Amino acid sequence: MTETREVVLKRLNKRLAAISDVGSANSVLFWDQQTYMPKGAIVGRAEQMATLSRLAHEMLVDSETDRLLDAAGDPDPEIVEGALIRRARRDHEKATRLPSRLVEELSRATALAEPAWAEARANSDWSRFAPHLEKIMPLQREVAESLGYEDHVYDALLDGYEPGATKARLEVMFDELKAGIVPMIRAISSENGGDRAALLHGEFDEATQERFGEEVATSFGYDWEHGRQDRVVHPFCLNLGPGDVRITTRFDPDWLSPALFGTMHETGHALYEQGVDPSYARTPLANGTSMGVHESQSRLWENLAGHSRPFWSCFYPRLRSAFPEALGGVESEEFYSAINAVSPSMIRVEADEVTYNLHIVLRFELEVALLEGSLSVADLPDAWNAKMEEYLGLTPKNDAEGALQDVHWAAGLFGYFPTYAIGNVLSVQLFDEAVKNQPGIPDAMRSGEFSALLGWLRENVHRHGARYYPDELVRRVTGRPLETGPYLRYLNDKYGELYDLTR
Amino acid sequence: MTETREVVLKRLNKRLAAISDVGSANSVLFWDQQTYMPKGAIVGRAEQMATLSRLAHEMLVDSETDRLLDAAGDPDPEIVEGALIRRARRDHEKATRLPSRLVEELSRATALAEPAWAEARANSDWSRFAPHLEKIMPLQREVAESLGYEDHVYDALLDGYEPGATKARLEVMFDELKAGIVPMIRAISSENGGDRAALLHGEFDEATQERFGEEVATSFGYDWEHGRQDRVVHPFCLNLGPGDVRITTRFDPDWLSPALFGTMHETGHALYEQGVDPSYARTPLANGTSMGVHESQSRLWENLAGHSRPFWSCFYPRLRSAFPEALGGVESEEFYSAINAVSPSMIRVEADEVTYNLHIVLRFELEVALLEGSLSVADLPDAWNAKMEEYLGLTPKNDAEGALQDVHWAAGLFGYFPTYAIGNVLSVQLFDEAVKNQPGIPDAMRSGEFSALLGWLRENVHRHGARYYPDELVRRVTGRPLETGPYLRYLNDKYGELYDLTR
Repeated sequence: MTETREVVLKRLNKRLAAISDVGSANSVLFWDQQTYMPKGAIVGRAEQMATLSRLAHEMLVDSETDRLLDAAGDPDPEIVEGALIRRARRDHEKATRLPSRLVEELSRATALAEPAWAEARANSDWSRFAPHLEKIMPLQREVAESLGYEDHVYDALLDGYEPGATKARLEVMFDELKAGIVPMIRAISSENGGDRAALLHGEFDEATQERFGEEVATSFGYDWEHGRQDRVVHPFCLNLGPGDVRITTRFDPDWLSPALFGTMHETGHALYEQGVDPSYARTPLANGTSMGVHESQSRLWENLAGHSRPFWSCFYPRLRSAFPEALGGVESEEFYSAINAVSPSMIRVEADEVTYNLHIVLRFELEVALLEGSLSVADLPDAWNAKMEEYLGLTPKNDAEGALQDVHWAAGLFGYFPTYAIGNVLSVQLFDEAVKNQPGIPDAMRSGEFSALLGWLRENVHRHGARYYPDELVRRVTGRPLETGPYLRYLNDKYGELYDLTR
Repeated sequence: MTETREVVLKRLNKRLAAISDVGSANSVLFWDQQTYMPKGAIVGRAEQMATLSRLAHEMLVDSETDRLLDAAGDPDPEIVEGALIRRARRDHEKATRLPSRLVEELSRATALAEPAWAEARANSDWSRFAPHLEKIMPLQREVAESLGYEDHVYDALLDGYEPGATKARLEVMFDELKAGIVPMIRAISSENGGDRAALLHGEFDEATQERFGEEVATSFGYDWEHGRQDRVVHPFCLNLGPGDVRITTRFDPDWLSPALFGTMHETGHALYEQGVDPSYARTPLANGTSMGVHESQSRLWENLAGHSRPFWSCFYPRLRSAFPEALGGVESEEFYSAINAVSPSMIRVEADEVTYNLHIVLRFELEVALLEGSLSVADLPDAWNAKMEEYLGLTPKNDAEGALQDVHWAAGLFGYFPTYAIGNVLSVQLFDEAVKNQPGIPDAMRSGEFSALLGWLRENVHRHGARYYPDELVRRVTGRPLETGPYLRYLNDKYGELYDLTR
C-alpha cells in the first residue's frame, strides 16, 4: 500500500499537533501552579505534569513518528515544510535518546523542587532546597550523557536551549565580554559613589505600577486579547498554546524598578511568541527558535527601548504624573541616570546592563562544575559567595541573595543561563540592524510609537518562529555571525557618556 | 511468563493513575477557560481539550487495560480493590463503545459551543448558539446509540451521570413530585402576593458578599488549603486533581441571593470531593459516585442547612451587621421568610425549593424530545416557552431567560438535569437520617457548628467516593431505596408553616 507524500505530511502534522497540545496543556498546568493553585495541590500537580511529559515524550519517540519523518522528505529550511521536518527530526532524535522513565523522574523532581525552592528562598534556608538539588543533579548528568556530546558534557544541555552553542564558543564570548566590561566597571566605580538610583526607591502604589506597566506593554504592541498578566514569585512569559501568550510580574511597593522593567522584559518575550506566523500553530515551529534569541527580544525591549532617552522623553512625564509624590521633584535626565546607574549588586534580575553579564559568568562556571561533579551541592553556597567576591567584590549576607536567588536550577534548567548573555549581545546587534534599515525608529520612540521597531522585528525575526536555527537567523538578518563588537560599542558609548569616561 | 496478582494490580493502578492525571489536566484547562483564559485562546484551547480527551479515551479502551481488568480479579464492592475494578470496568466498557473520533469531535464541539453560548446568552440571541447545538445533537444521538440501552435512547446518556437511573423510573419520581408539589404551589399562590423576597434586592457590596460567603464556606468545613474560589459566568465546583477542589461564584451587587446561596451550593459539592478517602487519589473512586448524590450534598448544604432557621439564628446577626444599610431594619424571621419565599420564576438557579423541580421536569421533557428527534433545535425556544406557561404560568420575555439560561446543553450534558431533582429528593432523605443518628445536629447549627453534620456525611457518604453505586449507597445509609416521601413531607412541613397552609 503506497502512501502519498500528502498523506504522510497530513499524518505527521496531526501527530505533531497532538504533541504540541499536550505540551500546551502542561504549560497551562505550570502557569496555574505558579499563579493560583492552592498549596495542598503541589504533589498531585507534580504527578499530572509528569504524566503529560511522559505522554508527549512517548508520542515523540514513537516509531511511527520516526517513519513519518523519514517519509516526509527533505529537511530544507528554505521551505517551511522542510524547516518543520528538520525541527521535528531534531526534537525526535533528542527525545529518543532520553528514556521515558528519566523524563518523568526529572519532571516530578523539578515540580516538587520548585515550591521547595520558593520556601527555601523565602526563609533563606539552603537546607530546604539542597535535598531537591541533590536529586536533580544525577538526573541532569544522566540526561546529558543520554543526549550525548562531542567535546564537553555541558554542551549536551546547552544545545537544548541554544542549538549550535558550545561551552568552547561561550568561553570565547565571555572572554571578550570580560575584556570589555571589567575595565568599564573599574572606571565607573572610581568615578562616583553609586547612589544615582536611590530615587527609584520610595512609595509606589502597586495598582498604579500595574496600570503603568500595562500601558507600556500596550504601547510596545502586546495583544491583551491573546494574553494577560498575573502576579508570581518569579516572573516569566509563557506560551500556553495558540492565541495565548501570558506574562507575569511581581510588585515591590517600595521600589519602582522590578515591576516596571520586568513587565517590559516579559513583554519582549511575549511579542516574539505573539508574532510567530499563525500558520505555524500546533507545530514545532510555533515558538521562538532558541532561548538566546528569545532573550535578545526581551532585552531589546527592556534595555534598548525601555532604558533609552527616546522612550523616556515620551513616557517620563506620564510616569511622573502617576507618582507625583515620589517623582515630582525629579527631572527627566536625573531619572534616566537613575535607571542606568551602574553598581555591582547581589541579585541578577536587578543588575544593571554592565554588571549583568558577570552574574551569568558566575552561574555558567558553577553549573559546569556541578555537572562535572567537581563541585558538590553542599559546597555550592560557599562557591557562589567566593565568585561574587571575585567578580563583583561583594559577599551575599545570606543564601536568599546568594545561591537561592534564581529558580532555574530548581526547574532543572542547567545550560540555560548563558542564553541571557547571548541575548544581551544579540539584542544590540539586531537593534543596530533595525535602525540601519529604519532610521526613523528612535524618533518614533520619542513620540511613544513602536510600530516601526515591532514591524521590523516581526518581519525579520518573530514571524519565522523556530524555522531557522539561531546562527542561520542572525546571519540572515544581519549578514554576520553573533558578535560582541556592537554590544561592547553600545555599552561604551552609553556609559561613557553617562559616566563621563571619555575625559 | 506468569504475572502475580500483585503485579497486575500495580500495573492497573499505574495505568488508571495516568488516565486520572490526564482527566485532571483537562479539568485545569476547563477551569482556566472559565476563569482567566484570554478570549483569543478559545480555538486553541478547544484543540488541547479535545486532544487530552482523546488520549485519556485511548488509554482507557486500550486492550492492555482490558487484559489487566480481566486479570485483576473479582469486582466485589465490599473490598475497596474490588470496587475499583468494578468502576474501572464500567468506565472501560462505556469508553470502548465510543469511537475516539466521536469523543474528540464532541469535546471540540462543546469547547467551541460554550463561549458561543455565553455570548448568545449575553445578547439573548438564540441564532448565535443554534448552529452549535445543531452540531452537538447528532453527536449526542451517536453517543447514546453507541453506548446502547435497554428501553429508551435517553437511558444511555442518563446512566453516564446516574448509574442505574432510567427514564421510566424518573417518570415515576416526577409524577410523585408533581402530585405533591403542584397543589402546594396553588395553595401558596392563592395565599399571598409574593413580594416577601423583595428585601434581598438592594445594594450589597461585592467584596462584603465575597467575605461573608467565604466565612460561611469555612464554617461548613471547606478547606482553603486545598481549594480556592474564583468568579465565573456560570458557577461550578471542580476537582482539579488530588488536593485541589475549587469553587466558583458570581456576584450581583444588587441582589444578595445568587452569590450567597451559590457559594453554599458549590461548597456542598466541594465538601463531598474533599471528603473522599485520600487513598483513592488518582483512581476511578476518587470522585463522588454520581451527579445525583453530588447534588444531594450541594442541596443539603444550600437548603437544609443554608435556608434553615437554625443556621440563620447564628448567621443572621453577622449578615445584618455586614450590610447595615440594606438589612438594618429587617428582623431575623422576616429574612427567613424572604429567603424561603415561593414564587414561580423564570430562572432555574434562582428558583425556590418548591418550584425548582418543575424547571427540571421541563428540561427533562425537552431534552428527551430533542434526543428522540421529535423536537428540532429551531423549535426549542418556542417549546420552552410553551412549557414554562404550562408548568409555571409564565412566559419568558426573551431567550436569555428562556432556553439560553443554562450552560448544560452547550456543554453536551444531556441527561444531566434530572440529577438535580434526584439530589433534591435525596438531600432530605440523607439529612433526616443524619439527624436521626445525631439528634444534636440542629442545635449545633444554631451555634454555627457544622462538624457533627459534616462528620456524619464524611463517614457515611463522602469518604466512599465512587465505591458504591447510588442505589447501593442510599440503601446502605438509609436502609431504604431513594424515595420522595421524606422530601414531600419536608416541603409540606416547612412551607405549610411559612404559608400557614394548615388552616
